[in-house]
Amino acid sequence: MSQERSLTNRKLFNSYFDKKLEDGTKITLEGWVRSNRNNGSVGFIEFNDGSYFKNIQIVYTKESAHYEEFTKVKYGSAIQVSGTIRLTPEMKQPFEIQGEEVIILGDCAEDYPLQKKKTSFEFLRDIAYLRPRANTFQAVYRVRNALAFAVHKFFQERGFIYVQTPEITSNDAEGAGQVFHVCSDLKHPDEFFGTSASLTVSGQLHAEAFALAFRDVYTFGPTFRAENSNTNRHACEFWMIEPEMAFADLEDNMDTIEAFIKYIISYVLENCKEEMNFFNNFIEKGVIDKLKLVINSDFRRMTYTEGIEILQKSVQNGHKFENNDIFWGMDLQSEHERFITEEIVKGPVFLIDYPKEIKAFYMKVNADNKTVAACDLLVPKEGEIVGGSQREENFEKLQAKMKEQGNEATLDWYLNLRKYGGCIHSGFGLGFDRLLMYITGMQNIRDVQPFGRTPGSLKY
Amino acid sequence: MSQERSLTNRKLFNSYFDKKLEDGTKITLEGWVRSNRNNGSVGFIEFNDGSYFKNIQIVYTKESAHYEEFTKVKYGSAIQVSGTIRLTPEMKQPFEIQGEEVIILGDCAEDYPLQKKKTSFEFLRDIAYLRPRANTFQAVYRVRNALAFAVHKFFQERGFIYVQTPEITSNDAEGAGQVFHVCSDLKHPDEFFGTSASLTVSGQLHAEAFALAFRDVYTFGPTFRAENSNTNRHACEFWMIEPEMAFADLEDNMDTIEAFIKYIISYVLENCKEEMNFFNNFIEKGVIDKLKLVINSDFRRMTYTEGIEILQKSVQNGHKFENNDIFWGMDLQSEHERFITEEIVKGPVFLIDYPKEIKAFYMKVNADNKTVAACDLLVPKEGEIVGGSQREENFEKLQAKMKEQGNEATLDWYLNLRKYGGCIHSGFGLGFDRLLMYITGMQNIRDVQPFGRTPGSLKY
Repeated sequence: MSQERSLTNRKLFNSYFDKKLEDGTKITLEGWVRSNRNNGSVGFIEFNDGSYFKNIQIVYTKESAHYEEFTKVKYGSAIQVSGTIRLTPEMKQPFEIQGEEVIILGDCAEDYPLQKKKTSFEFLRDIAYLRPRANTFQAVYRVRNALAFAVHKFFQERGFIYVQTPEITSNDAEGAGQVFHVCSDLKHPDEFFGTSASLTVSGQLHAEAFALAFRDVYTFGPTFRAENSNTNRHACEFWMIEPEMAFADLEDNMDTIEAFIKYIISYVLENCKEEMNFFNNFIEKGVIDKLKLVINSDFRRMTYTEGIEILQKSVQNGHKFENNDIFWGMDLQSEHERFITEEIVKGPVFLIDYPKEIKAFYMKVNADNKTVAACDLLVPKEGEIVGGSQREENFEKLQAKMKEQGNEATLDWYLNLRKYGGCIHSGFGLGFDRLLMYITGMQNIRDVQPFGRTPGSLKY
Repeated sequence: MSQERSLTNRKLFNSYFDKKLEDGTKITLEGWVRSNRNNGSVGFIEFNDGSYFKNIQIVYTKESAHYEEFTKVKYGSAIQVSGTIRLTPEMKQPFEIQGEEVIILGDCAEDYPLQKKKTSFEFLRDIAYLRPRANTFQAVYRVRNALAFAVHKFFQERGFIYVQTPEITSNDAEGAGQVFHVCSDLKHPDEFFGTSASLTVSGQLHAEAFALAFRDVYTFGPTFRAENSNTNRHACEFWMIEPEMAFADLEDNMDTIEAFIKYIISYVLENCKEEMNFFNNFIEKGVIDKLKLVINSDFRRMTYTEGIEILQKSVQNGHKFENNDIFWGMDLQSEHERFITEEIVKGPVFLIDYPKEIKAFYMKVNADNKTVAACDLLVPKEGEIVGGSQREENFEKLQAKMKEQGNEATLDWYLNLRKYGGCIHSGFGLGFDRLLMYITGMQNIRDVQPFGRTPGSLKY
């Protein structure tokens, strides 16, 4: 069926947009039926092959030799249609197909769980293998695809090397998260690798080894957390983007983050117009304006200390946070971050130079010996969206930190990177799925992943 | 240091290639020292920041105020050099830097394990965190990066949707491979997810659910096998590419595979010229010709049955295989595959219509009820490099197969895809790491992965 395959719905729309679609052209198309209604003499089928967000309409009449077959076409079934293109500039849809022949390629059983009536996201989660056919998820996964490619495109255009850091590891990068164990034999879990193995929580440490050989690198792959958190924002398995740059300080890092965020959002707005309009109308009113504000802002830079002072002053002036106990050294909560970016800066802002006690062991300690060269990017309606830092390149300082941390023995190789031509370097990390939530306005991480993995949930 | 960062070694070479590099320009560069020798009055430093395969040469003389500092620069250390560009059209390298100032950004300890003298790949595996700095691995990982991007580019240009299928799963796609168990508590392994969990061996089944919503999709992510195989070609963790296409039969599948293989190899040959010359000269003589043969061939198509007859005839005519017992129904070994592609076809060939008994349960049974619509792509000097098939779209036939297989209960959702608008669809899979071995000529899968995962090996 090679010839028919070449004409996807997207290609048909593209040729319309390019003004190359001609009235009267004979074509054959495949797709799945979204609706079929008729009044006894004229009928309309909406169908879609998933290559483009909009449906194509087929009109069939009693005059068609296949009229009976057309009337029998069921919601959800796969069909092949042959017919003639009719340009309809006066109608809602710019063209339609005058249907002449129809072949039912795959019927759809009566108990089809994905019904036309509006269903809840919760229900759809339970039929995760069918929900990609629902409108919202057509949009979500198409934006997901565009966003993933934009990530690669940005870094490739800048000469970064893509590194697939390992998933199975004996290291625990953050020294914090609960990890999943990996073994081939539950009774002898250490036997296969000769040591205990777990799923990675971050590719950063491995990426640093590559940055010190290739200058600019990035990872983009799955990471895991065995956290028993049943929130809208926690998943056990999620994709992370972790760039790492040698000869780069915190300023270089922030410049790269800013360019990156603007690039990928612009890419999605340009390449997923229909989908973003859908999100703007039905999922988060104003999401497009929210994203355009980010693209058009110069990202401000503010110290953590200044942020704390602003928050304290706001409390003194009567502002009520859920947590009103603001002090230097605290971990900011989402409400505090959002207040700074939404009310004070009214745009994206990097908070930098955090207290060393609340940040990871590998971050570079500043000259004040109290703060580290970290930068968290805060954006309106979200709070923190990217976390980065300059890494400690001094062997002795990092060694002391790792002794405290107790990971000097297992991560000796990581420490040694500072001994053999180590140099200043910086990097950042962001969760791809949460970024997608921010861009689409979807409220639950389970609804932006192809098959979400959360505690108690592993049906597919 | 933002300004210096913008000038990578690659950019310098690019501006030379674009004929924009001017003699006398003052520049500042960073990189790692590959060698430093001097005769007491003139010295030469070779260095490289990892952004381009070739080193840059710095010349320093007694006249330089920093002469003493230059002489002290050690192999392996990170430096920043300021100097003047000198075009040297009569020399081996087309330009050099007349060094004026040097700053040692990161010293290199005397016990640096990566010494200049030629070391074995086996030794380098043991210092996996440093080997990206070695010539061979600079080339390997840069080709790996280009190849990964080529994969995305090919599918994105054709409208395929990238799906990140899950790593943690309760399904076992092939029903064959040994799987890694995943749990948060080794004593209660099923508690976290409420069922036993393992690492995926293939994203295909999940990709099929997406193909039946988006028409053309692909996965590109890690997969796992807990096989205790200590061969050059087996790893516990490796990246797979698994495209899946709705409304596509076996012919469409082969057309796509052929276009894909030609595209990604061409991309690497065009974008990694220096690296491929290196492999051609030092790793596999003739590897470029091997790849060009693939690009320039029309891929033949031959049935398994015909392949068996050819092999039998060759044995009758005196050809000696290690396994000379050729019979219809056997699984072909590498020597048989290579004989067909190298000696008979003298180029790439699809072997199709394999006995159903030796292929996976989800493949479409042909009208003869003996063979399935599978296609394995065989290439010279390798054997099988891609495996694909049309999938069984008939509910009853697949159900019968799954009953035999005993996976009807756990994969009921997969079976149901045939009930709700299922249609003919096809797909293929290939191991990214083995593809990279084939393209570079590297002989051990451990040497093409950033940090290889094999039984007994989990140091990093």
